[in-house]
Amino acid sequence: MKFVRFGAPGAETPGLLDDTGTLRDLSGVIDDLAGDALGDLAQFGDRAATTLPPVPGTPRLGPCVGGTGKFLCIGLNYADHAAEGGWDLPGEPVMFMKATSAISGANDAIVIPRGAEKVDWEVELAIVIGRTAKYVSEEEAPAHIAGYCIANDVSERSFQLERGGQWTKGKSCDGFGPLGPWLVTPDELGDVQALDIWLDVNGERMQSGTTGTMIFNTHHIVSYLSQFLTLYPGDVIATGTPPGVGLGMKPPRFLKPGDVVEAGIAGLGLQRQEVVADG
Amino acid sequence: MKFVRFGAPGAETPGLLDDTGTLRDLSGVIDDLAGDALGDLAQFGDRAATTLPPVPGTPRLGPCVGGTGKFLCIGLNYADHAAEGGWDLPGEPVMFMKATSAISGANDAIVIPRGAEKVDWEVELAIVIGRTAKYVSEEEAPAHIAGYCIANDVSERSFQLERGGQWTKGKSCDGFGPLGPWLVTPDELGDVQALDIWLDVNGERMQSGTTGTMIFNTHHIVSYLSQFLTLYPGDVIATGTPPGVGLGMKPPRFLKPGDVVEAGIAGLGLQRQEVVADG
Repeated sequence: MKFVRFGAPGAETPGLLDDTGTLRDLSGVIDDLAGDALGDLAQFGDRAATTLPPVPGTPRLGPCVGGTGKFLCIGLNYADHAAEGGWDLPGEPVMFMKATSAISGANDAIVIPRGAEKVDWEVELAIVIGRTAKYVSEEEAPAHIAGYCIANDVSERSFQLERGGQWTKGKSCDGFGPLGPWLVTPDELGDVQALDIWLDVNGERMQSGTTGTMIFNTHHIVSYLSQFLTLYPGDVIATGTPPGVGLGMKPPRFLKPGDVVEAGIAGLGLQRQEVVADG
Repeated sequence: MKFVRFGAPGAETPGLLDDTGTLRDLSGVIDDLAGDALGDLAQFGDRAATTLPPVPGTPRLGPCVGGTGKFLCIGLNYADHAAEGGWDLPGEPVMFMKATSAISGANDAIVIPRGAEKVDWEVELAIVIGRTAKYVSEEEAPAHIAGYCIANDVSERSFQLERGGQWTKGKSCDGFGPLGPWLVTPDELGDVQALDIWLDVNGERMQSGTTGTMIFNTHHIVSYLSQFLTLYPGDVIATGTPPGVGLGMKPPRFLKPGDVVEAGIAGLGLQRQEVVADG
């Protein structure tokens, strides 16, 4: 199944796409795609096309999961991306966090913060946690995953790398975390470690890869992180980006107002963000 | 005023301490010490002792703020602490994040995660945001601060420094963020940059300092962070720790089950945590 949250920012309604692509309203069944509802998405498999009201028009799609308490990220998880940055391959997953206040809809604008000159893109496969996970094994991990979506780990490289310690500062600006368009359940997605992943800027292919070259796979990542902290329903884990970020180009390339970013992963849909300056 | 949240973990009730130290129940007035309620704490100044019901017994005190979306931290913000670790003084605030799932009550146990051998203490002055802040000046910052509390930025040094990139991994374990006991409003606290701050382990003084030696003061920190991201009511900012952490001792000292940590800041009360192993 493909799940969405539609409507105005901060007031999204849960929905799903049926087999014909029709958007249907889930708000009569669950309050939000959040919390415990994420642990039982299979319940919607049979009745989507028959009992849920269709949604008229083409509303904005918000982030495809609500109630996110943690937005965790794995760094340098594609061998070729690490190489383009000149970083050593990590011996275990590199974890950092983005602020949950950075989360936005898949097609919302990327806002360049005041003073920012190095806003970069990073298309990533994101895991959405469905059930609480603590000290789970790699074999147990799938039972704790609600599904997957696209994330753009938008990053301001100066804030991240030149403004004093720790990446978080350049990762957490408002709107730096588009999630969606869809939350897709694992059964629908198929082999999550064999998905094409790409990103275009103004129609030019910048990133291109496959989740098959991830150093640490999604089940390993969930198990690994759960050794350090409890993962709760709605938590999101972005799993790293393939080669082709602007920072790695010679010379580096960064986003400017008017640019259009499109990011896709096979089976997870397409994001499209216009880049704008902050007022 | 001194505000608290009391009751079972995850189901805390808002309250306040009146001038006599009596705990009174605020649940008839606000749902929680969270969100918009944090922007108007002054409303409780006059009626505390007369109209609010006293709370019987001595309930557990939970974290003194609810609905925390971000738990931001400033690193190396005391010149003498930076020196003990051998770090250069930062030219601007070093920001990192703790997971909000790490937040606990002031007197809850510190749980040593499985495999952890270097659990350390860091008493810190924490800012609680009361009103949304974006691009605010240092002069505007006070209007966005609900109050202050004690935080213990519990840190596993191996996870933080030896397990692959980024401090967050060693800062975010469950129970690594005791907040409280009280949220104290700025008018009651007085000069926030002239407070004694200390931490004892098993009755031995480990950390001792004053907020007067912070490199970046609280108003500067709020202004600074708001240039990067929006601060929302309930967000917490721990402002760095004075000298005396276990990592800086020769040889280093870390917490073990059975240890008792007590942390205090003048005017903000006292935390007391017993250290236990994870099952």
